Amino acid sequence: MVTIAIDAMGGDFGPEPIVKGCLKALKRKDFTPILVGNKEEILSLLPKKLPKSYRDKISIVDADDVISMSDAATDAVKRKESTIYKAVELVKNGEAHGVVSAGHSGATMTLATLRLGRLKGVSRPALVTLMPTRTGRRSVVLDVGANVDSKPEHLAEFAVMGGCYAEDVLNVEEPSIGLLANGEEDSKGNELTKATFKLLQGYRGFKGNVEGSDIFNGSCDVITCDGFVGNLVLKASEGVASTISALIKDYIRKSPVAITGALLMRKVFKLLKKEIDYAEIGGAPLIGIKGCAIVSHGKSNARAIENAIYQAIRYVDTGVNKHIEARIAELKQKEA
Amino acid sequence: MVTIAIDAMGGDFGPEPIVKGCLKALKRKDFTPILVGNKEEILSLLPKKLPKSYRDKISIVDADDVISMSDAATDAVKRKESTIYKAVELVKNGEAHGVVSAGHSGATMTLATLRLGRLKGVSRPALVTLMPTRTGRRSVVLDVGANVDSKPEHLAEFAVMGGCYAEDVLNVEEPSIGLLANGEEDSKGNELTKATFKLLQGYRGFKGNVEGSDIFNGSCDVITCDGFVGNLVLKASEGVASTISALIKDYIRKSPVAITGALLMRKVFKLLKKEIDYAEIGGAPLIGIKGCAIVSHGKSNARAIENAIYQAIRYVDTGVNKHIEARIAELKQKEA
Repeated sequence: MVTIAIDAMGGDFGPEPIVKGCLKALKRKDFTPILVGNKEEILSLLPKKLPKSYRDKISIVDADDVISMSDAATDAVKRKESTIYKAVELVKNGEAHGVVSAGHSGATMTLATLRLGRLKGVSRPALVTLMPTRTGRRSVVLDVGANVDSKPEHLAEFAVMGGCYAEDVLNVEEPSIGLLANGEEDSKGNELTKATFKLLQGYRGFKGNVEGSDIFNGSCDVITCDGFVGNLVLKASEGVASTISALIKDYIRKSPVAITGALLMRKVFKLLKKEIDYAEIGGAPLIGIKGCAIVSHGKSNARAIENAIYQAIRYVDTGVNKHIEARIAELKQKEA
Repeated sequence: MVTIAIDAMGGDFGPEPIVKGCLKALKRKDFTPILVGNKEEILSLLPKKLPKSYRDKISIVDADDVISMSDAATDAVKRKESTIYKAVELVKNGEAHGVVSAGHSGATMTLATLRLGRLKGVSRPALVTLMPTRTGRRSVVLDVGANVDSKPEHLAEFAVMGGCYAEDVLNVEEPSIGLLANGEEDSKGNELTKATFKLLQGYRGFKGNVEGSDIFNGSCDVITCDGFVGNLVLKASEGVASTISALIKDYIRKSPVAITGALLMRKVFKLLKKEIDYAEIGGAPLIGIKGCAIVSHGKSNARAIENAIYQAIRYVDTGVNKHIEARIAELKQKEA
């Protein structure tokens, strides 16, 4: 059975949504959670009439130190009593298969990379996000923030890792891979993407340059980019979606007729929210490390944590890491 | 009176929306248009009962060669009989104050830069876009595609030019200026933005790093970035907006109740469209050149061309170019 270490304290809203999300996940999936955090607080959040079958599965590792958002990620390695450190250590020691944290994302990434180590052949792990598209199938975009100032080799590795993820975790057959650039033509791009283009040319599924709009139109399964660019695109996209939503609400408020219309369209807005809400994804896997780490948003609610746990279970179950090592070796052979 | 040279042929839909847009603009603004394109075609598009007062204002410069989207921008300088070349030349010769083109944007930017020249102290012109925000006031984002692989000096110049634009053209008092990065903290950024940060520190209105979401939340008036990044963010944002719109339409189609709701919300969607439709902006000014050039979308309709013309008139009227030269000198002095 898959065991998932969960940082129970790191999120912006304390342990409540995290423990709730864990219990929700237990109702639907067979796995063993290890909650890392203040034991008393966690116990107080477990319902008194929790069935014994659940209670038996949950274990708690006591830890009180919480790395806060204002702390430097580089301090994380020194704070061995922190919830994130201890949760990652459980994976390192083989007591858990994967870790989920809604805490300081820089600390989580640093610890997962340094303590668990990188997969064979991987220079830099990358943060993966799944973007909603018009076709309903999500596109895999990476890196969205683990690195800045990436080199062409890194972007090529991200492409390979994203391809494995799409195949194994999302069941996409022969995923197409695009390189994010300022135009589709082969001649487009900056120095970084032009050099990456050459490394990826001829690699399975590589379809060349894709544009910002291709992230959302479903024309490409996997999109590789530098983490600086990926982070900007991700946050800008969230910004557009929430601005549109805010504008719609503003306009509706001003018109009784529109209020009625909005009520009749409630189901539509609900479906849309489900499609674009990050809680439905749960978190961003840090791909390329030995083990599995899901980096959740600090503002995660119970639903987001629940989904992050499913994501971790699936990541572990599929054995995508072995696949990545084989494909990275293939890429290096091609380059040599 | 301001004279605007208009490339009448370059757009994806031929001269019709361009001539129409020009006539619409003439109804509301006092200016002199010079339409550059196939004279017979243009004349056939002018309504027979066009008032003499309009007809007298319009002049036509005959040109038949149209640079198509598949042509290389670098060829533009050789094709002296092309509509874009001739339109830019009218500005160079002082016969027009500004140029509007919905043709090959690379060709327009190349010609405007090389034939008109750069303003004193400007290393690289930048393409400006106006993004919709939650507050109703648009944010000025540049560069969105004139350059890739920019240097810190370029990004600092873009910031200065954007500030002048916001002040003069959008009437923003003491505009705040942000540097697009992967986090707000001073420590965030890549090599390029970190070096730019130092150049801009202490410059009037500079508020440090801003994130992708700040483009749309109205927290910052001017945002500077490399053209590769700006182009991606712009296209990704358009992609999000059109995906949301497509998903809403899909969901509505499946439910009669929602269709009724959508009818009652028609006004809301119309207001939203007006806010996010690029036709309401008209085009992207290429800032930093001697003169004025508005780069319109190839798919521009008459409304977009009309607005692009207003934009050009305003750009010329405000004398923003003089302002830019003074402020760039100020920046260089600060750096020295």
